[in-house]
Amino acid sequence: MLVNCVAYHRGQKLADIPIAEVRTHLERRDCFVWVALKDPEPDELTALQQEFNLHELAIEDAQKGHQRPKIDEYGSSLFVVMHLIEPIGPDLLTGEVAIFVGPQYIVSVRRDAQLGFTDVRRRCELEPELLQHGPAYVLYALMDNIVDRYFPVLDQLTAEIEEVEERIFAGQTTRAQIEAMYSLKRKLMTLDHATQPLIEVAGKLHGGRVPPICAGLHDYFRDVYDHLLRLKQSIDNLRDMVTTAISVNLSLITIQENEVTKRLAAYAALVAVPTMIAGVYGMNFANMPELRWAWGYPSALASMVLIDLYLVYRFKKARWM
Amino acid sequence: MLVNCVAYHRGQKLADIPIAEVRTHLERRDCFVWVALKDPEPDELTALQQEFNLHELAIEDAQKGHQRPKIDEYGSSLFVVMHLIEPIGPDLLTGEVAIFVGPQYIVSVRRDAQLGFTDVRRRCELEPELLQHGPAYVLYALMDNIVDRYFPVLDQLTAEIEEVEERIFAGQTTRAQIEAMYSLKRKLMTLDHATQPLIEVAGKLHGGRVPPICAGLHDYFRDVYDHLLRLKQSIDNLRDMVTTAISVNLSLITIQENEVTKRLAAYAALVAVPTMIAGVYGMNFANMPELRWAWGYPSALASMVLIDLYLVYRFKKARWM
Amino acid sequence: MLVNCVAYHRGQKLADIPIAEVRTHLERRDCFVWVALKDPEPDELTALQQEFNLHELAIEDAQKGHQRPKIDEYGSSLFVVMHLIEPIGPDLLTGEVAIFVGPQYIVSVRRDAQLGFTDVRRRCELEPELLQHGPAYVLYALMDNIVDRYFPVLDQLTAEIEEVEERIFAGQTTRAQIEAMYSLKRKLMTLDHATQPLIEVAGKLHGGRVPPICAGLHDYFRDVYDHLLRLKQSIDNLRDMVTTAISVNLSLITIQENEVTKRLAAYAALVAVPTMIAGVYGMNFANMPELRWAWGYPSALASMVLIDLYLVYRFKKARWM
Amino acid sequence: MLVNCVAYHRGQKLADIPIAEVRTHLERRDCFVWVALKDPEPDELTALQQEFNLHELAIEDAQKGHQRPKIDEYGSSLFVVMHLIEPIGPDLLTGEVAIFVGPQYIVSVRRDAQLGFTDVRRRCELEPELLQHGPAYVLYALMDNIVDRYFPVLDQLTAEIEEVEERIFAGQTTRAQIEAMYSLKRKLMTLDHATQPLIEVAGKLHGGRVPPICAGLHDYFRDVYDHLLRLKQSIDNLRDMVTTAISVNLSLITIQENEVTKRLAAYAALVAVPTMIAGVYGMNFANMPELRWAWGYPSALASMVLIDLYLVYRFKKARWM
Amino acid sequence: MLVNCVAYHRGQKLADIPIAEVRTHLERRDCFVWVALKDPEPDELTALQQEFNLHELAIEDAQKGHQRPKIDEYGSSLFVVMHLIEPIGPDLLTGEVAIFVGPQYIVSVRRDAQLGFTDVRRRCELEPELLQHGPAYVLYALMDNIVDRYFPVLDQLTAEIEEVEERIFAGQTTRAQIEAMYSLKRKLMTLDHATQPLIEVAGKLHGGRVPPICAGLHDYFRDVYDHLLRLKQSIDNLRDMVTTAISVNLSLITIQENEVTKRLAAYAALVAVPTMIAGVYGMNFANMPELRWAWGYPSALASMVLIDLYLVYRFKKARWM
Repeated sequence: MLVNCVAYHRGQKLADIPIAEVRTHLERRDCFVWVALKDPEPDELTALQQEFNLHELAIEDAQKGHQRPKIDEYGSSLFVVMHLIEPIGPDLLTGEVAIFVGPQYIVSVRRDAQLGFTDVRRRCELEPELLQHGPAYVLYALMDNIVDRYFPVLDQLTAEIEEVEERIFAGQTTRAQIEAMYSLKRKLMTLDHATQPLIEVAGKLHGGRVPPICAGLHDYFRDVYDHLLRLKQSIDNLRDMVTTAISVNLSLITIQENEVTKRLAAYAALVAVPTMIAGVYGMNFANMPELRWAWGYPSALASMVLIDLYLVYRFKKARWM
Repeated sequence: MLVNCVAYHRGQKLADIPIAEVRTHLERRDCFVWVALKDPEPDELTALQQEFNLHELAIEDAQKGHQRPKIDEYGSSLFVVMHLIEPIGPDLLTGEVAIFVGPQYIVSVRRDAQLGFTDVRRRCELEPELLQHGPAYVLYALMDNIVDRYFPVLDQLTAEIEEVEERIFAGQTTRAQIEAMYSLKRKLMTLDHATQPLIEVAGKLHGGRVPPICAGLHDYFRDVYDHLLRLKQSIDNLRDMVTTAISVNLSLITIQENEVTKRLAAYAALVAVPTMIAGVYGMNFANMPELRWAWGYPSALASMVLIDLYLVYRFKKARWM
Repeated sequence: MLVNCVAYHRGQKLADIPIAEVRTHLERRDCFVWVALKDPEPDELTALQQEFNLHELAIEDAQKGHQRPKIDEYGSSLFVVMHLIEPIGPDLLTGEVAIFVGPQYIVSVRRDAQLGFTDVRRRCELEPELLQHGPAYVLYALMDNIVDRYFPVLDQLTAEIEEVEERIFAGQTTRAQIEAMYSLKRKLMTLDHATQPLIEVAGKLHGGRVPPICAGLHDYFRDVYDHLLRLKQSIDNLRDMVTTAISVNLSLITIQENEVTKRLAAYAALVAVPTMIAGVYGMNFANMPELRWAWGYPSALASMVLIDLYLVYRFKKARWM
Repeated sequence: MLVNCVAYHRGQKLADIPIAEVRTHLERRDCFVWVALKDPEPDELTALQQEFNLHELAIEDAQKGHQRPKIDEYGSSLFVVMHLIEPIGPDLLTGEVAIFVGPQYIVSVRRDAQLGFTDVRRRCELEPELLQHGPAYVLYALMDNIVDRYFPVLDQLTAEIEEVEERIFAGQTTRAQIEAMYSLKRKLMTLDHATQPLIEVAGKLHGGRVPPICAGLHDYFRDVYDHLLRLKQSIDNLRDMVTTAISVNLSLITIQENEVTKRLAAYAALVAVPTMIAGVYGMNFANMPELRWAWGYPSALASMVLIDLYLVYRFKKARWM
Repeated sequence: MLVNCVAYHRGQKLADIPIAEVRTHLERRDCFVWVALKDPEPDELTALQQEFNLHELAIEDAQKGHQRPKIDEYGSSLFVVMHLIEPIGPDLLTGEVAIFVGPQYIVSVRRDAQLGFTDVRRRCELEPELLQHGPAYVLYALMDNIVDRYFPVLDQLTAEIEEVEERIFAGQTTRAQIEAMYSLKRKLMTLDHATQPLIEVAGKLHGGRVPPICAGLHDYFRDVYDHLLRLKQSIDNLRDMVTTAISVNLSLITIQENEVTKRLAAYAALVAVPTMIAGVYGMNFANMPELRWAWGYPSALASMVLIDLYLVYRFKKARWM
């Protein structure tokens, strides 16, 4: 579905144009076209390919989706793929955006993602002196926006792990906590999946041999790169903490097992000792003077109770009960 | 066994030819020969070696098999080895294909693999404008086909790990699950074995100093390279998840042990308490008034049952039973 | 909040000046201005930006905070971010300092940190022959000071892990120890977060292509670099030790469980054996000669006690009790 | 001990010569000498050093042994150290070979290894057209031979791990299996010790700046390099599998513990329930009608047996017995 | 404390000289001074600094100690720091040596270490043809000596781990073993701390751009480098083995727990079964013919004993006892 197709001249919006008129604008100097698509049909992509003369392999990638974040140079144009991660309830949904950037055009193809880039466009149009840099600046604006969207996801995952930590140290070493840690690990992987290869992408755009189309904007792309490094470090830390939490949790479970064993043993003792005393007075010896005492029975019962009370006192003191 | 031997001129199929006529076609300009062998006999390879003047060490590798995926340059020709992975029931079978590429020939030698490359040949013959690029394009088509075959294998392994996850979190922390995780790890290793070194191979064909024979096709080889990176990332993730699943499973087993211990203790209590009461009334004190009460026996039995019922209630509430 | 704004000429302090007079001093040769801010308001930063012509993206980073330690070159000026780590009770607080360095100015913007840099300024002013090197020397002095502040934090963490080690090997394998180890891991991560990326920063200032502004000071920056490598190695070691301690602790807990089981079994035996003997003499056989012996009962009791004493002796010897 | 000392001319064997005559042959063109020693005495090495003018540090290394596999260039000559690994019963024995290669000589010094290199010499002498390449070709032949010897060792270790896997999944989670895994890890380390540094060695002989003496043979050394990479990958996989097997084994042991606990509990129940019933009928209430029934005793016994049979049925069904 | 201060001319010892005369010797051609200090006072270092014109930062490092092993170039002179590791009882003591090397001087400053370098000096003076190379050769001799001192430490740690292995596989999975493994890990870290950064140091002295002062000696420094690589590999292996031993030990402890549980269960059965039988014959049924049999009591006792004997037989066979 076509979302937008706008022509710009020296950073100023000219007009919304139909795809068919793109070619006429590409012939004007200092003019570029910014097209946004969403979950496009194959024929829409084919139309774009012909209009902008895009490389067949890039179109195929945009068509099939499920690409790894990457940047490919085709002659003087770039093909960039990024992941869009949106938290849907407790899960993370991975969408994708494929961006074609040429000297006079930028085409973004979004897939499986709710949130679009109208904000980016609005903000860009408010700063024509920056938009004057052309499609490469738009590429920066899109990348910056996409990377900024990863931070709240990261914050959510950080909150989740803190919640899990709190629970396991409060003694809730249950299956649910383990499942939560496992699912956290999986989500961190999804986020890592999205950001890790982007570092390489952003690296290619600000250091070493920069694609000519991006020349002059390396301060901007380095900024994106810095944000990605920050994300990466946080993700790595969270992954490490989850791994530690899993292993620490095993220790806590084993400690808990220990405690349960002790508690059980304490209760067992409370039953076993009276049973033994009862057994003794159940013996059939002819000559057992206690049996004939008037207070024999009550004092036997009393001794059982007293011993149990003493045991309870000892167990409580030793923190077994 | 010879599968095919076809001569092409400017991307158009000329004819199926016998091996003996290869030499005459190699002398014509813009002509190349595409030979496919399957589990060849040593003398078939020797014949090829003489016909195409292949390097002795490359022939030896193709002969012995069990090579690591690799690319070797011998002067102006290339020798490429790739693994073919086919799922046979629950196992993965590793076959191998060795490819000799020269300016006017491409020879593929397949071993221990069911599925051949007739599809690739058919598709190539349908696009003579691409096949015109010569043997290097055929190399790309073969690599692309082989790499595409890895994805369903990966999908199968992904499904397997998801099944295992589901089972262990449903409490089936049995030997069978552990064995399944172990076997998954092994299969991931097989897949990694096949793809990891190929990344290096594909990298050599699209970036830096490209072998002259592959010049002009680097966009194609980069595409294969991208697919391989995607595979690698997925394999790494799956390996990480299996490792995590194994350690998480240990926690779950320990939790289960804990639960079993508690359940056993509960049942033990149900037996031990009546035994203690019975012991008390089995004592032989002369003066035990209860023993002579008419309702003594029934109320002793009743107290046993009542205490047990109370215990059952408590244990159920504490989720021990 | 503005902390200081001082102009220097050939390493000698000229005067405290208001921000508004900065520009006049920047026009004099061999003169530079050193400004220190603390938790600045947005308009203070805007004023600085205009006065020193700082790059918009750098100002944005200083404004937003929560940056990763880094060094960015903007033309002939540098933008450096470092973390300030202060132990507040058992926790580590992370502050931040952003430093703008140009040929004639250095601006430090501190956030969320108690301790300032007045010491650094005092020491610099005492050595005018070094301060003559200009803003780059001040950058060195600041970096050196910040890095030196990490060492006491490291020492504290080292002491903490030694305390934990001592406790767990003394048998205190409790939840509290596990929580301490987990928290140590987290603090080490915070410290690593601060120092790891700085290594790269300091590396860029002394080796390879050094920013022109820092030329001639590479011995100084290498010194900072050496200190950072030392920190890194110590942090890595501590992290490794914490991981080992966690896994060793699990073994200790399991050993303890083993010991508890044995102790419980020993006590159970002390109760079970007399119960069995009592059971035997509670049998109702008509013909049990012992029952009628005068010493039958006392000797039965005595045998119970003797057997238990023997068991205690054996269990003590086997270290089960 | 001197094993062989042979002079070759244009790849053809001239004659077995005594060490003392080496010098005369070194003066002839297209001639080289191949000397093989085994566990040499210090004075034999000194003699060689003088004859071939070998570097003092290289001789010292060959003398002392226990070197890491390596390649050192001394001017136009090479000094290569490799490990020879021979399985002696269940253990791996590490021998060593030091090789001195110069433009007109090759000296191999073998230590602590049974198997020599007479095969290599025989095969080389059968192919004079290859031996014509001189000492560098002999170096290749020796390296190829040594590397080929690692494969059966690897196969043995692969078989060992498969045996262990089979056993642990068959429930034999005993000390012996754990010891076997530990020993496997150690042997893999020995093999890795031998091959890992050789990769670097072989890499230096076929890519980048190749020592002049080896020029023209890079296809051969690359072949060795490929074999080493294959070894490395297999070793890495085996190490990973051993690590996984160790952790999986712990899970299996814990599962087994679980099963033992359940089985014990089942048997305990079979004893505890009759004991409780017996306790009940051992009570001394005056009014227990069952006691006076003619069938009281047999039906009490019968109820014990029936309850136990029912329990057995339930436990079998729940797979506790 | 000044240990030695000797002037050499063309490799020959001239004389022991006081520090104050150093300057006169530095003016003579082919002459150099070798100074050795031990735990120096600040003013001794200041004196040296002035005499040899040493860099302030290097002096500061030598003064403060606790440096990471490193090599710093200050103009044409070098500053090298190495660790000295001495086993004191079961612990490792880390000393330090700082070495200043200039074209005509070498100054070694030793700290916290018993063993000095008089051996090195003696051996150097015996080989004037090598000592002629000047201070760089002395640097080599010192490095070689220091690195050679690490090997016995490594051997000791290897012996320690073998002892631990032997013990844990012999069933001594006690706290003491775990503590031993933990302490081994720590000591390996200390050794790694000392050697790891030295590899980099030695690498800078033999490959790539070598400091001019060390030119011509790269074969010697490569030898040191080789030794360090060998150390590194051994340390890495030992670390890996300790980690494996810790995890294997946990499995062994769990197996032992299993065995203890089984043994306890066996003993419990030996007590529980007679108790049950006694319970049966303690029932008060009127009609229990066995009770009145003359051999009733002895045969009841006999059956208890026989059943227990049978159980012992079964338990022994199943290896539970």
